[in-house]
Amino acid sequence: MDSRGSSENVESRVHELNIKEEEMNIGEIKKEEELSVEQIFAKKEVPSWKKQLTIRAFVVSFVLSVMFSFIVMKLNLTVGIIPSLNVSAGLLGFFFVKTWTKLLERSGLLKQPFTRQENTVIQTCVVAASGIAFSGGFGSYLFAMSERVVKQSEKGQDEFEYKNPELGWIIGFLFVVSFLGLFSLVPLRKIMIIDFKLTYPSGTATAHLINSFHTPEGAKLAKKQVRELGKFFTFSFLWSFFQWFFTATDACGFQKFPTLGLKAFDYKFYFDFSATYVGVGMICPHIVNVSVLIGGILSWGIMWPLIETRKGHWYSADLDPDSMQGLKGYKVFIAIALILGDGLYNFTKVLSQTIAGLYNKIQDRKAMHLPVAECSSPIAKTLSYDDQRRTQLFVKDQIPTWLAIGGYVAISAVSTATLPHIFHQLKWYHIIVIYIFAPVLAFCNAFGCGLTDWSLASAYGKLAIFTIGAWASASHGGVLAGLAACGVMMNIVSTASDLMQDFKTGYMTLASPRSMFVSQVIGTAMGCVISPCVFWIFYKAFPDLGMESSEYPAPFASVYYSMAKLGVEGFSALPKECLKLCYAFFAAAILINIIRDALGKKRSWFVPLPMAMAIPFFLGSYFAIDMCVGSLILFIWQKKNKAGANAFAPAVASGLICGDGIWAMPSSILALAGLKPPICMKFLSRATNNKVDTYLGS
Amino acid sequence: MDSRGSSENVESRVHELNIKEEEMNIGEIKKEEELSVEQIFAKKEVPSWKKQLTIRAFVVSFVLSVMFSFIVMKLNLTVGIIPSLNVSAGLLGFFFVKTWTKLLERSGLLKQPFTRQENTVIQTCVVAASGIAFSGGFGSYLFAMSERVVKQSEKGQDEFEYKNPELGWIIGFLFVVSFLGLFSLVPLRKIMIIDFKLTYPSGTATAHLINSFHTPEGAKLAKKQVRELGKFFTFSFLWSFFQWFFTATDACGFQKFPTLGLKAFDYKFYFDFSATYVGVGMICPHIVNVSVLIGGILSWGIMWPLIETRKGHWYSADLDPDSMQGLKGYKVFIAIALILGDGLYNFTKVLSQTIAGLYNKIQDRKAMHLPVAECSSPIAKTLSYDDQRRTQLFVKDQIPTWLAIGGYVAISAVSTATLPHIFHQLKWYHIIVIYIFAPVLAFCNAFGCGLTDWSLASAYGKLAIFTIGAWASASHGGVLAGLAACGVMMNIVSTASDLMQDFKTGYMTLASPRSMFVSQVIGTAMGCVISPCVFWIFYKAFPDLGMESSEYPAPFASVYYSMAKLGVEGFSALPKECLKLCYAFFAAAILINIIRDALGKKRSWFVPLPMAMAIPFFLGSYFAIDMCVGSLILFIWQKKNKAGANAFAPAVASGLICGDGIWAMPSSILALAGLKPPICMKFLSRATNNKVDTYLGS
Repeated sequence: MDSRGSSENVESRVHELNIKEEEMNIGEIKKEEELSVEQIFAKKEVPSWKKQLTIRAFVVSFVLSVMFSFIVMKLNLTVGIIPSLNVSAGLLGFFFVKTWTKLLERSGLLKQPFTRQENTVIQTCVVAASGIAFSGGFGSYLFAMSERVVKQSEKGQDEFEYKNPELGWIIGFLFVVSFLGLFSLVPLRKIMIIDFKLTYPSGTATAHLINSFHTPEGAKLAKKQVRELGKFFTFSFLWSFFQWFFTATDACGFQKFPTLGLKAFDYKFYFDFSATYVGVGMICPHIVNVSVLIGGILSWGIMWPLIETRKGHWYSADLDPDSMQGLKGYKVFIAIALILGDGLYNFTKVLSQTIAGLYNKIQDRKAMHLPVAECSSPIAKTLSYDDQRRTQLFVKDQIPTWLAIGGYVAISAVSTATLPHIFHQLKWYHIIVIYIFAPVLAFCNAFGCGLTDWSLASAYGKLAIFTIGAWASASHGGVLAGLAACGVMMNIVSTASDLMQDFKTGYMTLASPRSMFVSQVIGTAMGCVISPCVFWIFYKAFPDLGMESSEYPAPFASVYYSMAKLGVEGFSALPKECLKLCYAFFAAAILINIIRDALGKKRSWFVPLPMAMAIPFFLGSYFAIDMCVGSLILFIWQKKNKAGANAFAPAVASGLICGDGIWAMPSSILALAGLKPPICMKFLSRATNNKVDTYLGS
Repeated sequence: MDSRGSSENVESRVHELNIKEEEMNIGEIKKEEELSVEQIFAKKEVPSWKKQLTIRAFVVSFVLSVMFSFIVMKLNLTVGIIPSLNVSAGLLGFFFVKTWTKLLERSGLLKQPFTRQENTVIQTCVVAASGIAFSGGFGSYLFAMSERVVKQSEKGQDEFEYKNPELGWIIGFLFVVSFLGLFSLVPLRKIMIIDFKLTYPSGTATAHLINSFHTPEGAKLAKKQVRELGKFFTFSFLWSFFQWFFTATDACGFQKFPTLGLKAFDYKFYFDFSATYVGVGMICPHIVNVSVLIGGILSWGIMWPLIETRKGHWYSADLDPDSMQGLKGYKVFIAIALILGDGLYNFTKVLSQTIAGLYNKIQDRKAMHLPVAECSSPIAKTLSYDDQRRTQLFVKDQIPTWLAIGGYVAISAVSTATLPHIFHQLKWYHIIVIYIFAPVLAFCNAFGCGLTDWSLASAYGKLAIFTIGAWASASHGGVLAGLAACGVMMNIVSTASDLMQDFKTGYMTLASPRSMFVSQVIGTAMGCVISPCVFWIFYKAFPDLGMESSEYPAPFASVYYSMAKLGVEGFSALPKECLKLCYAFFAAAILINIIRDALGKKRSWFVPLPMAMAIPFFLGSYFAIDMCVGSLILFIWQKKNKAGANAFAPAVASGLICGDGIWAMPSSILALAGLKPPICMKFLSRATNNKVDTYLGS
């Protein structure tokens, strides 16, 4: 999951917390031993790259990939906020192989001990595979093409273009676009990691985590963390299971609990007892949770009720309530304005930082290389023991450049030939243009991500929506062409930055770049099959997937469709007064970001994040309340026991998220088997209840 | 609450746990100081008896009495199991006066420091006042006379006698019967406490508690315990408040949550989220909780479904489901058989122990008194420092015997004159007979209670039901006469043993017997006014009080009415095959008790208590499940942290019970004000839900 932005990038800032935690872990160990990390591991042999790629690693990776694909898919389809699941993937990967090797050790069959390199291979593979569950666009661009979503936006229209998801073409599509990113940046790995010394905060954090697991102290802590994770996993799973019984229809159950009263419930203010989003709240920084809540209050608490009073003036009173010409249009387009405003600001900012950073790095490199003749190897001298050893192992195993370039060209060719068959609206020349620019954009994103931990994959995706959409134009199915182009672009850009993060992790755990690359390729291949299958299970099990009232509303699908439409048709798609409001919010998003950056990180703690604020605009605040509950729990825990909270909160949160997420698996199987929950927990107003009682009594 | 048996005496065995806890507290202190209790307190002056009776003590007592009357009344009217609330009364009394004195101390206005004697006065007063809430029979004999309860039992009958509760006569009735117990045994206090050295486990436990509060270590612990109590009080109160919103009718809300499924719910197996009974489960010994659950499974899980299959054979199929001739008769009478069997066994056992004990004590006393001339004061020599000091203070303040006898005769006279006016069915000669035997029975009970901590008040009450009921006979309203006689008897017997428990507490905390007596009198007077008022609030606020489907079914009211009817009409009141079953269960109750006693306390841990088993027979298992959850929580807590659990579990449990209990106050006020909860949380089967949805949709 590394640097991949969440549906709307909220999560990149999430890593801040995790990194701190990892640093603490490793910090403790350092204090005790007074040795650098690589000095601690100096006596441990590093296996050859082939030996790092064990069968057990890929078996475990496969199991975890399926698990995390379900979790990510559930998150995609419910709210669209995906927190960093690095810690849980790391913990579980470590736990599984450790148990495996222990069992083998006892029976005397163990041939190869469990090394941190192998651990890194698992982490890379799982992250790559479950990454596809996000970048595959099942909650965004891909599902946005489906009849169900298009129909909702095109209420009243008779003719519209759509492309329903089908297992075959989705797997094919993912296979032809997902590997390009890997090949595009492979030759640049040495420059990015060793010469530029980019930080890649998430990759570094993951490496710290894995390194700490393999010290005796760290292993002990990890064992405790796994136990906590397991406890809350079980609790969360059983809780979801219990909830299931009371959900005879989508209008029943804890998810429709009017915790704050019926009036508040009508405006989507309620605590819905979801363990997932309480867990997400515990992982996300407080400011994200608060921003989401502020967004919810601003929209559902203030703006929508106000706009509702203008019914008949600002929008026709006899419109379908779901029509994009009515209130729903305001909700979606104002949110898009915020998202685009924030996206544009950050795109510009990160891009300028990237260029400035690149310029500096190249200058530094020149300055270093010039005096080489006079002073022999000044680099080696200034390098610490850790860096020396890491560099030595990183450059040992090479990946031939011809393979990278050859691979890229070959896959591009296949892709250009096949994609127009999948999407008739996307022409071969669109694809060639994308593939020419893609490596540059991928490099920019990977570089920016290395500096700021901020993957702009979805921003590049939106760029593709607007440019290709406008190019294809409305009459030639620009909407679908834009969405398809978005998918192509996002996949390349996001896998490229993922790969670079993984190289960084490998660098710091002495895993070979070759084994990283192979693991990433295998993981991506797994993901290209697993994710569509998981999505397919959801799609078949829940026939109302994507509908607003459903348990799985897939909110970003509508947003992506509306964006594509906006790109093709311009502002004509908007209801009456909406454009003014959109301008205002677009400007506000940029302004808020400027204020944040002007105040600096420390002093801007109270300035909300526009991107986070936008999500409840169409969904309502219920998950914001869950997340704030998570925030509150973490806050109280940190007040009471700072060290304990820092060490165990990510494990507890992961347990909550994973348990609830995994329940999606049995629940969809139950739905597919036609087993429906037996009870409806219903909430009726006093008056309605009297009516119902009379009806049932008679 | 002391030695007063709970509605069905279950709770006397409860004290075992508390005593252990108190002993631990005091044990810790001893270890540290290596001094006996009175040596620790040697430097502290004991105030004169008049100074022990401060105004602040009675103000605090009044507040706590109102509070505990609400709690006890709620327990009376819901399930009828009343756990020992000694610890919470002690903690809260200590907390209130301590805060009060601290505030005064800071402002420099404090005239008299807070002593443990004053604390004992508060405890005595609160226990006496809230004791009336139980012995007043609001959940049993008194409410059993009401039209509502009688009508339920006499379904189909046109004529029946009843006496509806009214504030006036209840207060009058309580005043003329509640003080007799106090006067009847006062002259015997020295013999019981000093000469016989009876243990009075609950009184001793309370004294230990109070003593521990007034040591520095104990005060610190008490402060922590109060904090825990407060925390869980708040939680439990807010939880009840939250639940309220979803209870538009009695069929709604968390109390009707089919936690284990709809089928199990139909047979009253469900967890009803009641903080009270989870707390009760934490205070009651595990065996009580398990017994209740076993009883529930045996009755609602096995027997009732089986008897239901005999519908049309064993009882008429076209009877009203609530008819005593039908299934309900089986439920109530089998439970009565168990209760009477257990009651009879324990009555015989305790009575024989009492007589044997009495004989021994008198023999000992004679043996001691005989050689007095030869060996000067051998008693004083064998007495520890503590006992010497306690005895010295206990005998210092005397209560004149003429006052006791005079008081008894005067109140008897008033009572004999007034009671027949309140209950026409009860004749003056019935009352005189009761008052002649009462002192003997009161002595027996107080003595037995001193030995075994087991108050047989309700057993003596039942004795009165059957004897006076049979005497008055059916044609002269024997049922009501029996119930009224039960009230008279229970009040005398229970207040007498309460008083003796308090003397024991006073003895161990150096409180004067005079102040104890005065405090008990004032507390009783308070109770005679507070309890009827509290009951009145419930009665007016919840018009379905006493109905089976109500939130407050007052289960023992029906049981007492049925017992009285049984006493008057004999077995003719029973449905067809019920008598055989009753014989079997009556015998089983005695047999189980014999097995328990034969195995001894330690080895009989797995033998259930018949009395506890009987309660779910008519109520169902829902509260048994709550209580077992409480047991489970305590069990896990004890496994994890034995010392912590022992020190804090009673405080946590008290918090849970009190918070929920106190919510009864605002909830009844809301009901009186006509404010009804706005939402109904309803549980419908899938099929019914579809029907309702169609109905609401159309």
